[in-house]
Amino acid sequence: MESFNVAILGCGTVGSGVAKILLDIPEELSIRANKKINLVKIVDLYPGKSASTYNLPIDLFCGGGKDLTREEASRYIEEIITDSSINLVVETIGGTSDYLHDVMLRVLKSGKHLVTANKAMLAEKGNDLFSAAQQNNVLLGYEASVCGAIPIIKTIRESFTGDKIIEISGILNGTSNYILSTMQNEGLDFPTALKNAQEAGYAEADPTLDINGGDAAHKLTILIRLAFGANIDYFSLHKEGIDQISKEDIDFANEMGCSIKLICYARQMNGKIFAAVKPMMVKSENFLSKVNGATNCVQVNNLYSGKHYFVGKGAGSLETASSVVSDIVFAARYEQKAISMPELKNCELIEAGSIMLPYNITFATEDRPGITGLVTTAIGSQNINIDTVSHNRHNKEKAYFSVVTMPCTLNQVKQAIAEIKQKAPGLLLEEPKILPILY
Amino acid sequence: MESFNVAILGCGTVGSGVAKILLDIPEELSIRANKKINLVKIVDLYPGKSASTYNLPIDLFCGGGKDLTREEASRYIEEIITDSSINLVVETIGGTSDYLHDVMLRVLKSGKHLVTANKAMLAEKGNDLFSAAQQNNVLLGYEASVCGAIPIIKTIRESFTGDKIIEISGILNGTSNYILSTMQNEGLDFPTALKNAQEAGYAEADPTLDINGGDAAHKLTILIRLAFGANIDYFSLHKEGIDQISKEDIDFANEMGCSIKLICYARQMNGKIFAAVKPMMVKSENFLSKVNGATNCVQVNNLYSGKHYFVGKGAGSLETASSVVSDIVFAARYEQKAISMPELKNCELIEAGSIMLPYNITFATEDRPGITGLVTTAIGSQNINIDTVSHNRHNKEKAYFSVVTMPCTLNQVKQAIAEIKQKAPGLLLEEPKILPILY
Repeated sequence: MESFNVAILGCGTVGSGVAKILLDIPEELSIRANKKINLVKIVDLYPGKSASTYNLPIDLFCGGGKDLTREEASRYIEEIITDSSINLVVETIGGTSDYLHDVMLRVLKSGKHLVTANKAMLAEKGNDLFSAAQQNNVLLGYEASVCGAIPIIKTIRESFTGDKIIEISGILNGTSNYILSTMQNEGLDFPTALKNAQEAGYAEADPTLDINGGDAAHKLTILIRLAFGANIDYFSLHKEGIDQISKEDIDFANEMGCSIKLICYARQMNGKIFAAVKPMMVKSENFLSKVNGATNCVQVNNLYSGKHYFVGKGAGSLETASSVVSDIVFAARYEQKAISMPELKNCELIEAGSIMLPYNITFATEDRPGITGLVTTAIGSQNINIDTVSHNRHNKEKAYFSVVTMPCTLNQVKQAIAEIKQKAPGLLLEEPKILPILY
Repeated sequence: MESFNVAILGCGTVGSGVAKILLDIPEELSIRANKKINLVKIVDLYPGKSASTYNLPIDLFCGGGKDLTREEASRYIEEIITDSSINLVVETIGGTSDYLHDVMLRVLKSGKHLVTANKAMLAEKGNDLFSAAQQNNVLLGYEASVCGAIPIIKTIRESFTGDKIIEISGILNGTSNYILSTMQNEGLDFPTALKNAQEAGYAEADPTLDINGGDAAHKLTILIRLAFGANIDYFSLHKEGIDQISKEDIDFANEMGCSIKLICYARQMNGKIFAAVKPMMVKSENFLSKVNGATNCVQVNNLYSGKHYFVGKGAGSLETASSVVSDIVFAARYEQKAISMPELKNCELIEAGSIMLPYNITFATEDRPGITGLVTTAIGSQNINIDTVSHNRHNKEKAYFSVVTMPCTLNQVKQAIAEIKQKAPGLLLEEPKILPILY
């Protein structure tokens, strides 16, 4: 049986999981790949630490097990790039440094397959990596970069080939979903729920990218490229996080039979792409409302086969590693056959404020008669049809109430709010909270 | 671009959908397949009727559009089998006749790829078809045979290749799930719910295979072969349908926070397979309890990546056809690379009565003191630990109550019931209902 040699760059949480699986089930992998898959080298700055979690053999580490300086590590990486006996490199270093980008590019140009879990790099600086893979007839595998264990990349590439994808949406960040779920189920406010998530290991010490929608937007950018063949600019993608969601918002959602979820959404419209990462009120009839905790769920809506939901673990060492290994098997098995994919077209994003959506707008006002009339009149004057006005709540000197609109643009909603502020200065005691509704 | 020629045998619900998709999006398919996919011939007894739903061009039909006798259709099929310009045959005739089995075998032996949605044939008589595909180096594609649109076959084959499957379960029959859902949500009894399902188009005039678990068992047999490389005998698989589920059972389930679902379950145990199709009480914490209506859901539990759920439409013309077309694209793209798969090992099934499971047993007895003691004593005497005894209900002269056990075997439960019948003849007014509980 032909050999297929693999090197791992960066042996942290994911990389060490990849090494473990490659060493644990070599026979199964060889049968599936139709080649003998050998893990031949690992580069990591701290081999002792890397090897400890899964008891990896220390002699696989370049340098024989001693800690490496950055210069030493770079030299070993150069050796791997120029080693023609290595067929595939796993990049599990992470980050978007120019140095790493250059390493990834040179791996591809050296004629080696590259498998990565690095969603930030692919979303922010992925274009020339994808081009280099095409030009050099090698596979750039990235199953692990979107939702850890959920096999959504190969599903779109290899399974939805008898259909056309209309729309993709989902819950792509487990940390946010864990926080929103505990806010909803345990009545916690955001800071407490975040602290709990950190203590439970579901949020990092610096949770910024999870909380502000950046991580979810990385994944959505990658899915848009694959599903629509559309090259969009990650930095122009509308992203909003969950840090502004209050206990009151959750209470309103509960009363309306909704859950608040951080939703990623993308759809092709007239040759452009509408896409956003945004907290939304999800109606209980929508399957996404049932996905709780750190779980991820990707929804794909197809022209012929309708809606599909893929639910699984979006993170974790062995979970994400299993996706990396599936890419290794795929590259080994199919090699050149797996490479050529449609060319990406550069694609403009539709300005988020111009899309028609139903909205829930929550107002906090003084508690006196006449206000509902004033507010709804302003909304009507912007040609927004109102579905329901409801859930009045009186909290000391404030009255909270929410208006559910028929589909309209965010720009219309903002103009209505501006009109209220102009006509009755001081009436709105807080900035109104505007959340799209997902039916 | 190289051509890849396809013929369709049987142009009913699924076959006509396949033709439509092939004719509707030829450019997309060619890019994905890296070959020009041409639909060259269709054989059907009634071309006029076949062509009408999707406006298919009548000149694609053998015989030029006129209705065919069986002899004429057989002759056209022979022509296709011996036509070396045809690369792939789609079999969407259905049924398990020896004639059709022979046709499928000869398609494979002629060196053509074969794509089929025929779950009954694959489950009941599939072994030599799989062998013939291997021996003749052609692909036997069957994505459409399990849960219509859900891409579970390629997911197991191509995506879970970096992992080991421990367990598969799911709701694999949409008709049963639709009936159970309406029983639960609308309080209907079984005959009324079945009638509604027939009127709504979710159950056929003869619903036998959907109701008795046979259809679900076909799918489970195919999944077991693929996931565990294990060849089991379909006819020995334990299957039970939903026709014995009463309104009272549903009420009990509701009170216990459970849903009754027709569950397919399979697990490898000590080189054997435990598998069953059986109505179960599914706890509300289990995701399968949330899958309602005609929807299908496959759960795969992996060693490294944990539990995955795949939710989608399990039937329908274009839904199932999209899976057939994805197999055509796969065969065209990967050809020989896609063929060789691990050899199947013949595998024994574990006797269902010997497996440890928690059970819910519902007793209908006379309404008088002392009965709970008698029943629970008999259960204890079989070394069954009781979890809870609850939900006493009094209905004219009958008392209904249910006992939830800790994991035990069905054989133990049956012995306990035999002991009750022996000690107190006439006490049990109905045969106790025994349902496993899925946590």
